[in-house]
Amino acid sequence: MMTDTRTDIITYGDVVSVYIDEKRNFVIRLVKGGILGTDKGFIKHDHIVGKSYGEFVRTSRGVKAYILPPILLDKLKLLKRTTQVIYPKDLSFMIYLSGITPGSHVVEAGVGTGFLTLSLASFVGPQGRVYGFDVNKRRIRILKEALDVLGYEDRVELRVADIRRLQIDLPGIDAVFLDIPDPWDAIDTIYRVLKPGFPAIIYVPTVNQVEKTVLALREHGGFISIHAYELLLREYDVSKGATRPQTLMIGHTGYIIYARKVVCE
Amino acid sequence: MMTDTRTDIITYGDVVSVYIDEKRNFVIRLVKGGILGTDKGFIKHDHIVGKSYGEFVRTSRGVKAYILPPILLDKLKLLKRTTQVIYPKDLSFMIYLSGITPGSHVVEAGVGTGFLTLSLASFVGPQGRVYGFDVNKRRIRILKEALDVLGYEDRVELRVADIRRLQIDLPGIDAVFLDIPDPWDAIDTIYRVLKPGFPAIIYVPTVNQVEKTVLALREHGGFISIHAYELLLREYDVSKGATRPQTLMIGHTGYIIYARKVVCE
Amino acid sequence: MMTDTRTDIITYGDVVSVYIDEKRNFVIRLVKGGILGTDKGFIKHDHIVGKSYGEFVRTSRGVKAYILPPILLDKLKLLKRTTQVIYPKDLSFMIYLSGITPGSHVVEAGVGTGFLTLSLASFVGPQGRVYGFDVNKRRIRILKEALDVLGYEDRVELRVADIRRLQIDLPGIDAVFLDIPDPWDAIDTIYRVLKPGFPAIIYVPTVNQVEKTVLALREHGGFISIHAYELLLREYDVSKGATRPQTLMIGHTGYIIYARKVVCE
Amino acid sequence: MMTDTRTDIITYGDVVSVYIDEKRNFVIRLVKGGILGTDKGFIKHDHIVGKSYGEFVRTSRGVKAYILPPILLDKLKLLKRTTQVIYPKDLSFMIYLSGITPGSHVVEAGVGTGFLTLSLASFVGPQGRVYGFDVNKRRIRILKEALDVLGYEDRVELRVADIRRLQIDLPGIDAVFLDIPDPWDAIDTIYRVLKPGFPAIIYVPTVNQVEKTVLALREHGGFISIHAYELLLREYDVSKGATRPQTLMIGHTGYIIYARKVVCE
Repeated sequence: MMTDTRTDIITYGDVVSVYIDEKRNFVIRLVKGGILGTDKGFIKHDHIVGKSYGEFVRTSRGVKAYILPPILLDKLKLLKRTTQVIYPKDLSFMIYLSGITPGSHVVEAGVGTGFLTLSLASFVGPQGRVYGFDVNKRRIRILKEALDVLGYEDRVELRVADIRRLQIDLPGIDAVFLDIPDPWDAIDTIYRVLKPGFPAIIYVPTVNQVEKTVLALREHGGFISIHAYELLLREYDVSKGATRPQTLMIGHTGYIIYARKVVCE
Repeated sequence: MMTDTRTDIITYGDVVSVYIDEKRNFVIRLVKGGILGTDKGFIKHDHIVGKSYGEFVRTSRGVKAYILPPILLDKLKLLKRTTQVIYPKDLSFMIYLSGITPGSHVVEAGVGTGFLTLSLASFVGPQGRVYGFDVNKRRIRILKEALDVLGYEDRVELRVADIRRLQIDLPGIDAVFLDIPDPWDAIDTIYRVLKPGFPAIIYVPTVNQVEKTVLALREHGGFISIHAYELLLREYDVSKGATRPQTLMIGHTGYIIYARKVVCE
Repeated sequence: MMTDTRTDIITYGDVVSVYIDEKRNFVIRLVKGGILGTDKGFIKHDHIVGKSYGEFVRTSRGVKAYILPPILLDKLKLLKRTTQVIYPKDLSFMIYLSGITPGSHVVEAGVGTGFLTLSLASFVGPQGRVYGFDVNKRRIRILKEALDVLGYEDRVELRVADIRRLQIDLPGIDAVFLDIPDPWDAIDTIYRVLKPGFPAIIYVPTVNQVEKTVLALREHGGFISIHAYELLLREYDVSKGATRPQTLMIGHTGYIIYARKVVCE
Repeated sequence: MMTDTRTDIITYGDVVSVYIDEKRNFVIRLVKGGILGTDKGFIKHDHIVGKSYGEFVRTSRGVKAYILPPILLDKLKLLKRTTQVIYPKDLSFMIYLSGITPGSHVVEAGVGTGFLTLSLASFVGPQGRVYGFDVNKRRIRILKEALDVLGYEDRVELRVADIRRLQIDLPGIDAVFLDIPDPWDAIDTIYRVLKPGFPAIIYVPTVNQVEKTVLALREHGGFISIHAYELLLREYDVSKGATRPQTLMIGHTGYIIYARKVVCE
């Protein structure tokens, strides 16, 4: 088994996660003279440079702050919320169902805040491509800035466009992801861009949209294995002899619809 | 945007998914003279060769069977169940939380039936590595055969070994996944093999194991961001004007514990 | 505090619950020479007579069978299922929301198998009245027979009638319960029979019916505090150090709608 | 069918529910010269007297406030929260499982804020008895005041006592309800006071208490049909074409344990 000789000394330009506690964790790009201010004191970027991942620095008030490599969940914090986001419990299931692998080419619309775009970019890797569309120019611009910070500019192509009337050529798409208010109007596009045998994954917040989308997929024809799902996530508070689910939970985010393209007769 | 020129004409040796309906879908490797028998009639492999994905053949009884590219969910059907499996709702969340990307090196124990092993192999891609351990020799052998069919032999290294007493050198591990009865006994190993800042994801079926594992992680030290989760998945029956969740659901599979390694003082 | 001097010696004519295990429990009326046959052996009614509640008899195969007083959950077993039933988790919440007390007068339609009718009869007591309606003559007859066995004939009045076109005079109704396919067509009746300030509780299986009913209540006017709920029940398997929810659960039964009548201007 | 001739003209001394909207509803006893202040303006009790239920008055700022008969859910608002309360979804299921009817005699400990005490008093009616115990003298006193306002003084007997060491004579108890931290220490008492064949219903917030209680019931012997449950309640936001569950929900309250006493050999 191979031995890793990479060194992980943190330097200027690196994007790092700074973890004080569950409510105080941040993702920043290190710049000379930079300052991260928190209600537990501030941290000079210069103090972070030279550290290794997993080590801590202390804030001006002496509170420990761990410096961590930014993994997927951290990276989401770089995105500026311009719309309702899709939560990790749903993102993960959508991506798993899609069957994407490193190198996959996928279409996504609308990108919104970009939680799904960023997640897809992470999983398809540098050989993959995410073609992201949104009708809102500003959202596209804001998302592009964040993705560039992460070095995802080569694997994500964002465009201001309406997926329902998409005219560009996109052959060889391994999965289509939709998070738009009227997915039933985009079914022709989905069918056109998807490679035969590959899936579309659609996210909608209301039950009415579930019904309308599923009925439209059936009516359109050329889709099999149509399913609609809902996921509930509960977190637990663990303490010795007194373990229980947390009192408050998110009771609803959205529904996930899955369908797979086949060749129409 | 690039144009895909791959052709997808199916040939002998290909692993394909054959879909008759939700209850009758199969994953097979095509061999000359091969036969797939179903209660809706049989299909000759020879009839599938030459087709493209998304097209259908007919069984001996005239029933349509769609030929699909095997995506992740299909591939799981290749695995022979030697133990309780982890379900896709949990697999997906575990993988998402782990933050793995194409090229990641991960450790997994015990591999059991291999639902997680196969999923990890799919997501880390050909540049990644899955080091899988299980104490059961037979399970390892059965799993290895299935992974070889999928061409995953280069990215998965399976070994009969007890993760709780693992002596081999495994530097540079980006995530550790555990599905063993006593994860609290493997925390030293987890801590040793994980790169600082990276996460461990532990799956356990009972609440008692959740409590014992979380308390052991806290006691061990060197772990932050410790969480315990549970996911519930509901599927919906959609019909016009009569949409509702399905009557029966899986009410419990297991709990997911997350923790991130930091450097101990 | 008072002393109870009732004796509970079981005699012919008594309705008793016979409990062998969770899957083998029965409710029977004791008759001379009667036999209860089970796959664990048979029990002669004559052997039960003379026992006290909580004691056991043995079946012909020597298996213990406890003789219990029939409480509400037992009594439901007397009902012959002629339609989909409402489950205890929903029955209980509907009854609680309704605010009924001993002596309440309530209307119920359609009665169907009678799980709700019997439950209401139990809670309103001998001074209360349940006016039950159903369009199906056979269902009414079958339910009436079972309720008579329980001695509920004086507190339950069943009638073959369509609640949507109910013409009879029913003043002073403290709560209305509906389990019909189109509750939106019965809102005029609900409003007419309910005393001002009192609630209607409506049970429907699909989300579409929830929406249509709630919108109809709002449109009708004269209703406040309109809510729609769903309940999920999980049972736990408890064993030392290995406690967890049961694997299978009922993922859906129906939705409960609540609304309270006020005086229209 | 009988005709109701009761008149419902509201007068001084009546306890009424005042409903402005879902967040502004109150339960008050009307006194001459009384004032109900709200952030939507104040209401003089004198203006409510002479109204009938279901009618509205206007606040000093012209906002409608409906005057409603106080049903069970309203009455709970009279209780001053001295402890964690049991929620209606759990109260209702506990009461349903218990099988109590008008006239039942029940034991409850600890009474705490009294949500269950009040609910039991409502369901057992004037012929029933609720024997309520709590170790906290102040809680008992505060609860007693509220129950007296509702006219429940004859049907509820509250006592400062520790159920685990209860010495008084309580024959003929139809159901026992426990909401104490260590129900396993009260199992002897439960067994002693319950009539054979009747149930105990125990409410606990943590999974550990579920396990410990169920194991103690099994170990004690003399209990059958032991079950542990959990209920989840979701409320729906209904609007035309956009119906969905509410975003936030209560993810956990407590677990409900059920067991039925039989005669030990």
